[in-house]
Amino acid sequence: MSVEQLVAELCRQAKEASRRLATAPTPRKDRALTRLAELLRREKDHLQAVNAKDLEAGRKAGLSAAMLDRLTLSDKVIESMAAGLEEVAALPDPVGQIDTMRRRPNGLLVGRMRIPLGVIGFIYESRPNVTVDAAGLCLKSGNAVVLKGGKEALESNLALAELIRRALAESGLPGEAVQVVPTTDRAATLALVKQERYLDVVIPRGGEGLIRFVAQNAAVPVLKHYKGVCHLFVDRDADLEMAVEITVNAKCQRPGVCNALETLLVHREVARSFLPRVAAELLSRGVELRGCPLTCELVPEALEAQEDDWPAEYLDLILAVKVVQDMDQALEHIAAYGSQHTEAIVTRDYGRARRFLEEVDSSVVLVNASTRFNDGGQLGLGAEIGISTSKLHAFGPMGLEELTSRKFVVMGQGQVRS
Amino acid sequence: MSVEQLVAELCRQAKEASRRLATAPTPRKDRALTRLAELLRREKDHLQAVNAKDLEAGRKAGLSAAMLDRLTLSDKVIESMAAGLEEVAALPDPVGQIDTMRRRPNGLLVGRMRIPLGVIGFIYESRPNVTVDAAGLCLKSGNAVVLKGGKEALESNLALAELIRRALAESGLPGEAVQVVPTTDRAATLALVKQERYLDVVIPRGGEGLIRFVAQNAAVPVLKHYKGVCHLFVDRDADLEMAVEITVNAKCQRPGVCNALETLLVHREVARSFLPRVAAELLSRGVELRGCPLTCELVPEALEAQEDDWPAEYLDLILAVKVVQDMDQALEHIAAYGSQHTEAIVTRDYGRARRFLEEVDSSVVLVNASTRFNDGGQLGLGAEIGISTSKLHAFGPMGLEELTSRKFVVMGQGQVRS
Repeated sequence: MSVEQLVAELCRQAKEASRRLATAPTPRKDRALTRLAELLRREKDHLQAVNAKDLEAGRKAGLSAAMLDRLTLSDKVIESMAAGLEEVAALPDPVGQIDTMRRRPNGLLVGRMRIPLGVIGFIYESRPNVTVDAAGLCLKSGNAVVLKGGKEALESNLALAELIRRALAESGLPGEAVQVVPTTDRAATLALVKQERYLDVVIPRGGEGLIRFVAQNAAVPVLKHYKGVCHLFVDRDADLEMAVEITVNAKCQRPGVCNALETLLVHREVARSFLPRVAAELLSRGVELRGCPLTCELVPEALEAQEDDWPAEYLDLILAVKVVQDMDQALEHIAAYGSQHTEAIVTRDYGRARRFLEEVDSSVVLVNASTRFNDGGQLGLGAEIGISTSKLHAFGPMGLEELTSRKFVVMGQGQVRS
Repeated sequence: MSVEQLVAELCRQAKEASRRLATAPTPRKDRALTRLAELLRREKDHLQAVNAKDLEAGRKAGLSAAMLDRLTLSDKVIESMAAGLEEVAALPDPVGQIDTMRRRPNGLLVGRMRIPLGVIGFIYESRPNVTVDAAGLCLKSGNAVVLKGGKEALESNLALAELIRRALAESGLPGEAVQVVPTTDRAATLALVKQERYLDVVIPRGGEGLIRFVAQNAAVPVLKHYKGVCHLFVDRDADLEMAVEITVNAKCQRPGVCNALETLLVHREVARSFLPRVAAELLSRGVELRGCPLTCELVPEALEAQEDDWPAEYLDLILAVKVVQDMDQALEHIAAYGSQHTEAIVTRDYGRARRFLEEVDSSVVLVNASTRFNDGGQLGLGAEIGISTSKLHAFGPMGLEELTSRKFVVMGQGQVRS
C-alpha cells in the first residue's frame, strides 16, 4: 500500500467513526478520557522503554539537548498528560448546546446547536505528549482525529496510540476515532492535507516552515497558527512601575513561546524616565536589547536595531525597543510589523485604553496585563489546541468550543412558506 | 497591466481601505447604505440604459429567456435593491459587540469583541443585483469587498460600482472599500482567489462548476455554498395532512432554489395512506415523481428512480421518492445521499423529533416545517450573503454576524503571569 493509500484509508476509517462519536453521550467520552489517564499511569514503564528508543535514535541523529528534552516522556510529562485528560473530562461538553432559541413571528422556534466539526487532521512536530493532549480535546468535542507527529517521536506516538485505542474500546467508543499515521515523511503530510473527502479541517502546530507547507498544499481548510510578534506599548501616562513589571514578565517568564514579548514601544514623553529603568531590569536578566537611535542614546548597552528586528519573532532573551512619537505611530508600527497575535498597552488613560482595544487588529488585545495571558487556560477556555492567527472560524486560543460548529435546529407546528 | 496585476492592485487598495472601514462609526456606514439606495432610485433611467446594452449583448449571444430575466434591472429589481439596502442599514451593527465579559480568578476581565473579517472576495454569476446586495452586507459588517460578477452583467456592474463609490465618498468612507473587477474571464477569477496577501476569505455563489473551480484553485480560505439535496422524512405517526402541505410547499413553492425539496422519504407504515394522497397533489401541480419500486406500485404515475436520482439536485418540478423501513434507514439515506444542506421530519413523536434534530448532520434541521425556511431572513439573521454547506466558520445561512470574527479583549490591573 502506498503512503497515499494508507493515509486515505486511515482518514476513511476516522470519518466512519466520527459519525458514532458525534452523538456519543458525554459520560462515555469522559470515561474514555479518564480510562486513558489510568492507562498512561499504569503503563508508564512500557511507555518510557519505547520512548528510550526514540531518544537513542535522536541522540545518534544529533538532536540538540533542547529537542531531546521535548521528546522525553519523563515521569512528570506522563503525569501531566494524565492530569490534562482528567481536566478535559471535567470540562463541560460543548456538543448539543443551544445558547438561545428565538421564536419567529410565524411561531417557528429557531436555535443553533453545537456539533463536532467531524474529522480533524492534526500535524505537529516532536513532542509526543501533544498526541495525547490533541486526542483528548478532539474526543471530548466529538471529533475523530488523524494525528501526524514528528519522525523523532514515532515509536512513542505509536505506543500512545495503542493505549488510546484501548481506552476507546473499553469505553464503548470506536477505536478508529483516533488514528496515528505510522509513517513520518513529508509525503504522508502531503497526502493528509489532500484528504478533503474525509477531513473537515487541518490544524498544523509547529515551526513556520511546517505551517507554510501545510497552508500551501492543503485541499482541506487549514486553521493556521503563525508566529507571535507580540508588542507592548507603554503609553505616556502609564504607571511606570506596572509597565516595568509587565515588560519583564512578558519577555522573561518564558521567552521561547509565541505569546512572549518581542517588541517594546515606548511613548516619547516617558522614554527618558522609563527606558533606563526597564533596561536595568531586563539587562540583569540577560536580555539583549536592540533599540531605535533614541533608545540607544538612553540605554548605552542597547545594540542598534536593524530593519529586520521589527518583524522578528526571537523566541529568545532578545527585545526590540522603539520610541514612538504618539499613539498613532504605535498603532501603525503594530499594523505594519505585528502578526495579529497579541498586543498590550500600559496606560492610565481610559479613552486611550478603549481606543487601543478597538483599533488593534490582533487575536488578543490587553490593557495593563502581560502578553503571556494569550492562552486558552488563562482566558478561561480550559485546555487549548492552538492559537489561530487568522480570523476565519476562530481567532486566538482554540478550546473545545472552537473544535465545534453550529447547525440550525427549527421546531415547527406545520409552518410552510408563503 | 496584466489581469493578475490589475486584480492584485484592486485587492491591495481594498485592504488599505479595510483598515478605515473596520473602525468606521455605525451611522456613517448606515448613511452610505441609505445614500446608495437614494442614488439607485434617482439614477434608475441611467442604470436601465446601461443594462440594456448587457441585455442586447446577451440576446445576441443566445442567452436563455430565464438568463435574460435574471440579468434585467427592472423597476422592481432596482426598488428591491434599494429597499434591501435600507433594511441592512436598519439591522444592528455586529462590529464592536461583546456578548459577555467574564472575570477570571486573578481579576482579569475577558471578553470577545466582534470585528470584521477584513477583505472579502465575492464571486458570483449573472445577476447584477447581487453586486449591490453583497456590497451592502460587507459594508455594514465593516468589511471591504472585491466583487467579481459574471461577464453577461459587466456593464451593469460597472455602473452600479460607480454609484457605490459615490455613496461611500459622500458619506466620508473610502471609495476603494468596494471594488468591482472590470474584466470577467476565468483568469481574473483565478487571480482573485490567489490573493492571500490581501483577501481574508473568498465566497463563491453560483453553479457547482464555479464553486469547485474556486475551491480547487484558491489560496485564500473559501466559504463554500454547494448544492442542496434536501430531504423530507414523513414518519410513521406523522400528521398526514401536515405532511402533504409541507411536501407541496417544499417542492413547489419555488423549485429552482437550493432549499427546495429534492427527495421525499416515507416510513413504510404510512406509505399506503400517504403516498397516493401526496402524489395526487404533486401531480396536479406538474411534479414528475421518480420512485422506489414500492412507490411505483402505490403511485402508477411515478417513474422508476435510478441510482443517480438519489444524489440529484433537480432544481425543477421533479421529486425522488423512497419508502424506508424505519427511521434508521431514513437517517442512513440522508447521510449517504444528502448534501448537509436542509432536512426536515414530519412527526408527532417527541422522541423521534429529538433524535432527528440531533442526528442529522445538516446546516438546517427542521421538525414539522418546510425546508424552504433555510434562509437568513426566515431564520432571523436579517439579510444573507449565502448558505454555507461546510462547517468551518459558518454552517447554514450567513448574515452580518457570519461576516465577522471575534478577538479577545482583556482588561487588567497590572496582572502578570506566574
